Amino acid sequence: MTRRTRGAPVRERAFHERLARTLPAGRRGLLPLGDDATALRPPPGRVAVVSTDTLVEGTHFLATSPPERVGAAATGVSLSDVAAKGATPDAILLALVLPVGTESAWAESVVRGAERFGARFGAHVVGGDTKPGPVRAVVSTVLGWGRAAHLAPRTGARPGDVLVTTGTVGRGGLAAARLAAGGAPGRKAVVDLLDVRPRVREGIVLAPLSHALIDTSDGIAEAARLLARASAVRLVVDEEKLPLARGIGSVAPTAARRRAVAFYGGDYELLAAVPRGRVVRAERAVRAAGGRLTRVGRVERGRGAWLRTRRGRVVMPAPGWQPFGPERSFDRG
Amino acid sequence: MTRRTRGAPVRERAFHERLARTLPAGRRGLLPLGDDATALRPPPGRVAVVSTDTLVEGTHFLATSPPERVGAAATGVSLSDVAAKGATPDAILLALVLPVGTESAWAESVVRGAERFGARFGAHVVGGDTKPGPVRAVVSTVLGWGRAAHLAPRTGARPGDVLVTTGTVGRGGLAAARLAAGGAPGRKAVVDLLDVRPRVREGIVLAPLSHALIDTSDGIAEAARLLARASAVRLVVDEEKLPLARGIGSVAPTAARRRAVAFYGGDYELLAAVPRGRVVRAERAVRAAGGRLTRVGRVERGRGAWLRTRRGRVVMPAPGWQPFGPERSFDRG
Repeated sequence: MTRRTRGAPVRERAFHERLARTLPAGRRGLLPLGDDATALRPPPGRVAVVSTDTLVEGTHFLATSPPERVGAAATGVSLSDVAAKGATPDAILLALVLPVGTESAWAESVVRGAERFGARFGAHVVGGDTKPGPVRAVVSTVLGWGRAAHLAPRTGARPGDVLVTTGTVGRGGLAAARLAAGGAPGRKAVVDLLDVRPRVREGIVLAPLSHALIDTSDGIAEAARLLARASAVRLVVDEEKLPLARGIGSVAPTAARRRAVAFYGGDYELLAAVPRGRVVRAERAVRAAGGRLTRVGRVERGRGAWLRTRRGRVVMPAPGWQPFGPERSFDRG
Repeated sequence: MTRRTRGAPVRERAFHERLARTLPAGRRGLLPLGDDATALRPPPGRVAVVSTDTLVEGTHFLATSPPERVGAAATGVSLSDVAAKGATPDAILLALVLPVGTESAWAESVVRGAERFGARFGAHVVGGDTKPGPVRAVVSTVLGWGRAAHLAPRTGARPGDVLVTTGTVGRGGLAAARLAAGGAPGRKAVVDLLDVRPRVREGIVLAPLSHALIDTSDGIAEAARLLARASAVRLVVDEEKLPLARGIGSVAPTAARRRAVAFYGGDYELLAAVPRGRVVRAERAVRAAGGRLTRVGRVERGRGAWLRTRRGRVVMPAPGWQPFGPERSFDRG
């Protein structure tokens, strides 16, 4: 879709009726798409795992961002949360806030982007809502099915556990740094920030082997802090072992800047506390699921999240993404 | 909360941590409040019924609207959708969009309003999301548990069915008309528009007895049109029989104006197509659930939703609430 062609403005009922005809999910649920609600049959022995997340124009995407990417990213952030509980995603609901006059094609591309992205992980758009408002926003709710015994709550980390992470550290921070630098790479960075890669398959195999599992959407440092706090333990991450995203060195020549980029957030990896005896099994399982797992630290008695730097000092890591400004509670670990 | 006292601005983590400590739901779910996602165990034999809805500042509420009412109304609109599928509500997720600097007390009151309102129907706030944006918005997702055989899809109406509605017709339109008239009653009307009364108990007893069930959030005329279209039948509503909200006559002296008010929307009643032989049972069941049921029309062979006026003419009813402007598809029935 190009922004030059100004298409027909969105109309709620016409929009919903067109989606009901075109989305494959219309033939999946227990209710036709467009009914008051969505109905889903739980697989035997499973529990519902639900999460909701929001992308707002101006904060998370621009009016010029490709709408399919916006839909995919909105779905990706919720998929990441459901993945962090080891659940198999099933259904996506999308609540769209749209200024009156928004082209129908824009909204349809958002939904199509969500549907295509979700389908890669077995989830489909089954419902939603469209409301007028002064700014575009996309709220995704993802429902998946997990196992009560394998939810790996963030309260579950125990001293002796090994800390492992999927993928790399700093992809989100790298995109943000490039965006801040402006220019042509800046424009690419807007799209890079929407390139959310939820670790759904990794979560499904990691959760049953982990004491605690959390996603790193606000940065690995923040994830470690939340895990330490919820589990009342001390987490030590070895900076040396962090699988840094390729290219961080080019935008962050000093150790301090590199750390700021690495801990910025927007990574959507999984950080797990795995009992020592299961680490090898976890590594094999994640590899078999197409991912990679890196040992980055350990859980100890004590409090707070700490970073052992390349020079061997143990310091408090920089805070991750703080959307409403600096949090006073941060330093209390 | 008074608007004169400007309290501390919202901070995401501090806000979530305070909610995790204070919300009763923190002791209910399979996961602690504040984990990446919410986990809920399905009651035996039930299916998940989910719906999502949005209220936006400036469109559905004002900056001066009492935040507890905003939270209650946001929850109410989703509860109404879940009620229309006969489900028992269980969990509420709230996605808040808040301008940076919004008082934390405002956001907490929204959540408290949602929690208190939901608790009246057995549902509790179990999770959500907070994001910065240029305007306040509250997105509620309600998850309930229904029965696959009793979802009363809007495709289910059959010729011979009797049309029944809960409550009255025109409460929403009356509040909107008073708001448009301005003045002191106008200020009350802002609050009246947030006075959503989802028919949860009625839906639970009506759904198993109905062929089709739908809520009237966009007006009973629009609900009838959607039902007729989805079921490929003709619906005839008798204007004479409509249980008009008290006070409509005072703002709408002519039949045409009365109709515009009655069909405006914002009622959140249930409209059901009930097989003739079950109508008496349905009336008794709804009365036992504390509600009222009125026979307002019938389902016939044919197409479209029609209104038999007090003078006996059969006409196309006025459209209900069309948030993005007039829909071209409306007149096609």
